[in-house]
Amino acid sequence: MVAAMHMKRAFYIGRFQPFHLGHQAVLEMIAKEVDEVVIGIGSAQKSHEVTDPFTAGERVMMIRHALGDTGVPHYAMPIEDIQQNTVWVSYVSSRTPPFEIVFSNNPLVIQLFREANIEVKQPPMYLRSQYSGTEIRKRIVHDMEWKHLVPPAVVDVIEEVNGVERLRNISKTDYA
Amino acid sequence: MVAAMHMKRAFYIGRFQPFHLGHQAVLEMIAKEVDEVVIGIGSAQKSHEVTDPFTAGERVMMIRHALGDTGVPHYAMPIEDIQQNTVWVSYVSSRTPPFEIVFSNNPLVIQLFREANIEVKQPPMYLRSQYSGTEIRKRIVHDMEWKHLVPPAVVDVIEEVNGVERLRNISKTDYA
Amino acid sequence: MVAAMHMKRAFYIGRFQPFHLGHQAVLEMIAKEVDEVVIGIGSAQKSHEVTDPFTAGERVMMIRHALGDTGVPHYAMPIEDIQQNTVWVSYVSSRTPPFEIVFSNNPLVIQLFREANIEVKQPPMYLRSQYSGTEIRKRIVHDMEWKHLVPPAVVDVIEEVNGVERLRNISKTDYA
Amino acid sequence: MVAAMHMKRAFYIGRFQPFHLGHQAVLEMIAKEVDEVVIGIGSAQKSHEVTDPFTAGERVMMIRHALGDTGVPHYAMPIEDIQQNTVWVSYVSSRTPPFEIVFSNNPLVIQLFREANIEVKQPPMYLRSQYSGTEIRKRIVHDMEWKHLVPPAVVDVIEEVNGVERLRNISKTDYA
Amino acid sequence: MVAAMHMKRAFYIGRFQPFHLGHQAVLEMIAKEVDEVVIGIGSAQKSHEVTDPFTAGERVMMIRHALGDTGVPHYAMPIEDIQQNTVWVSYVSSRTPPFEIVFSNNPLVIQLFREANIEVKQPPMYLRSQYSGTEIRKRIVHDMEWKHLVPPAVVDVIEEVNGVERLRNISKTDYA
Amino acid sequence: MVAAMHMKRAFYIGRFQPFHLGHQAVLEMIAKEVDEVVIGIGSAQKSHEVTDPFTAGERVMMIRHALGDTGVPHYAMPIEDIQQNTVWVSYVSSRTPPFEIVFSNNPLVIQLFREANIEVKQPPMYLRSQYSGTEIRKRIVHDMEWKHLVPPAVVDVIEEVNGVERLRNISKTDYA
Repeated sequence: MVAAMHMKRAFYIGRFQPFHLGHQAVLEMIAKEVDEVVIGIGSAQKSHEVTDPFTAGERVMMIRHALGDTGVPHYAMPIEDIQQNTVWVSYVSSRTPPFEIVFSNNPLVIQLFREANIEVKQPPMYLRSQYSGTEIRKRIVHDMEWKHLVPPAVVDVIEEVNGVERLRNISKTDYA
Repeated sequence: MVAAMHMKRAFYIGRFQPFHLGHQAVLEMIAKEVDEVVIGIGSAQKSHEVTDPFTAGERVMMIRHALGDTGVPHYAMPIEDIQQNTVWVSYVSSRTPPFEIVFSNNPLVIQLFREANIEVKQPPMYLRSQYSGTEIRKRIVHDMEWKHLVPPAVVDVIEEVNGVERLRNISKTDYA
Repeated sequence: MVAAMHMKRAFYIGRFQPFHLGHQAVLEMIAKEVDEVVIGIGSAQKSHEVTDPFTAGERVMMIRHALGDTGVPHYAMPIEDIQQNTVWVSYVSSRTPPFEIVFSNNPLVIQLFREANIEVKQPPMYLRSQYSGTEIRKRIVHDMEWKHLVPPAVVDVIEEVNGVERLRNISKTDYA
Repeated sequence: MVAAMHMKRAFYIGRFQPFHLGHQAVLEMIAKEVDEVVIGIGSAQKSHEVTDPFTAGERVMMIRHALGDTGVPHYAMPIEDIQQNTVWVSYVSSRTPPFEIVFSNNPLVIQLFREANIEVKQPPMYLRSQYSGTEIRKRIVHDMEWKHLVPPAVVDVIEEVNGVERLRNISKTDYA
Repeated sequence: MVAAMHMKRAFYIGRFQPFHLGHQAVLEMIAKEVDEVVIGIGSAQKSHEVTDPFTAGERVMMIRHALGDTGVPHYAMPIEDIQQNTVWVSYVSSRTPPFEIVFSNNPLVIQLFREANIEVKQPPMYLRSQYSGTEIRKRIVHDMEWKHLVPPAVVDVIEEVNGVERLRNISKTDYA
Repeated sequence: MVAAMHMKRAFYIGRFQPFHLGHQAVLEMIAKEVDEVVIGIGSAQKSHEVTDPFTAGERVMMIRHALGDTGVPHYAMPIEDIQQNTVWVSYVSSRTPPFEIVFSNNPLVIQLFREANIEVKQPPMYLRSQYSGTEIRKRIVHDMEWKHLVPPAVVDVIEEVNGVERLRNISKTDYA
């Protein structure tokens, strides 16, 4: 407990729409290098959009229960979009436990943390063409197989909140 | 894991400036009635003010490490002030895992959740005159004993971030 | 109908917490000088506060139904606080039908419209010590007579939304 | 008057850029099923854009004067975009008189109200290819016939505010 | 000095991503007609985007040092996007010294100032196909010649802040 | 010019309601230690309030014309309040030319810049009881001598915008 402040922590951000096995594989890899992972849930204010169907609370649930068995000590923290890149790093830092390294493949995230003199590593892309939120949302909308691409706990959360129906409904146009 | 969505959860909100033994006693009591507690960290956007010295991230750290040994399964979620009472319940609900009962003694919090048909219970005030954030901040500023009023992990966090010096500095006026 | 754009309109703003007989008397007087009155419902985003208990929608209802019989053709338009006095006149103007005269006793409102070269008249204060929102809210909280100070339709609205109970509840402190 | 709170009200939202005969036909149909219609003027903060040329105040004028003769008792309420779908229903509800049914063909509006357990009906699309804001704005820009597609009062409002010139001007590019 | 308030001032707005010789040529022309030029730096809150790579502070530096030798007395004022066209003119006016004429080729800027009864002139486009921010940013990203298109002081600022590297980095996609 | 980026700059922030001889004395002192002074105009969004009567643009004018003769090379940059202390330093830094030292007596400003590892010096208070915005505004309202407390150019600006009348008007209450 006394050592709490001295743990080595990494930061990893995604939108997790939804959280999938690609995310999980990367997090398990990151967990081998640090004591705890601070997971930023990006675009936290969004939900009920075709590209962002799930609420921040639903995504917190997905992550917590998916990672429960994996031995990835973590914090799942919603991060709202703020539209001002110059203050983004300090915004994130003030809403999260302290971290000393960032794992990201997003060019803007990499640039902003590097300008703030924070170390950034690029994790390997885990079968990205397959494990991608875009692909999974498309499969849900078109009634194709998708459950094998996410942890079982994520299937639970999506079913519990009627996420399949929600995503299909908001994917309709308002023309007959 | 499959049962994740079906756990009984309570919501408890505070500013936790800082998290103290009164908060901990109430949370231990709440934990006996539910499976998990969703802890809302209020006024999350504030810090470096005389009444709100610590950042949301620092308060997440206090809560996580203070509760680590206590057997209180929880989520610590920052909640920003939004200044529109009519949307506050839906704002909170969208940023947190689902909960079915609220524990609060704040008249506005009670009123808003009850208007939304969510059950509210008022927990006993645990030695409130002694265990209060106002009292603890006053003691820190005036160099009086305060460490016995908070969990040891909170002392750690405050010392690590130079919280005593920060609070004393911002308590000065700009007149000599 | 063709003359719609050419009607003479006045603007009158208040918080209407709640709408009372003093407001109504002033509006009836204003209605004698113009064709229609644009009523701005100030601090529209506020509710469930001791000084601002009612929502914008509830205040729209109060005004519409109180004025129904009085022959005061009007528009009741919510106006949110924007905290930037220099843009306030253009903000109001863009959210309301066009008006050519303002009735107000508020020094800031008078100053802002006059700087924008819009005519302002100060209506007589109608028994202000008696017909004041502050007085009426105090009476509601302390269980004193208040219904004779507002139009009957306002009593209806307040009762329908359990406004008396709401105002009393949020007036409590969270100390025993 | 006493019955004010007990009227049956429907909610109908649109951007009304501009208000046209298709809107009017739908509102006349809705008016047969309820006592009053609460008309939400969406994207109220927008104006002077190619897809949103008219201010909220101008749209209030269009609706009030177009519906004046039609026997559609209504409230025309500006609703600003808030970019947070999860709080949108409570946002709308707090700024409008209470309603018990929603009429909409917009998939997101339908989904959000249904998740909030509010009844939604889909009105028939009234000659949508003809009576559409997009079509009317295109006709105004290209100097084609458009006045037969809107109520006469809307022609008045648009002419009075020099709306044709405004829309054509903002449709230009800044390249010669 | 006493004459300060009585100087004739023009307003000219751009995003200046980056400030280039086309801007400078136009400003030198405007400076011949007025005593001082108020330069609005648009989208001031943006930076680190492919179309908006530089911060407001960096753009202030570019303008100040580029214009230092040119005899263009000016104020360089950041103007944030506000997304409400109806209040934009008063927003700009409250954040800038008073001006009596606007120079712009942007249709929306022209329309908004003209609706506010402020005179607008359209300056000649100075070799626009060549001197355009879009063109210069494209050249920087693709390692083509660009320094001849901007004043030497702008090259200095961009190099000092590692602007070339920044723009190239954020132009990458996150796919390998 | 080439050396532009390498100048030594200081940052100094105030509300300047209005700019007075105390500010000027401090700025002249700071100017001896650096090449240029970046002057932040705090609470830039405020005006027409008893404690903040002048707009950001008016304050820019005061500073520019008061410092014109004094040999204080400077930038006067409006800084809006953002209500999030943790991002304030990066917010300021992104809207201003780069600076390496801060001069301030405000405890919060000092604390925030020091936490960001930026050097802070406390300038001597120049006859603070006399040269204070509070004192000057009080004198203006009560028709006492005030012009000897500000530079002549500030008198000009205040008179030109009818600032005395404005401040007196907004200082009235709306009770007779």
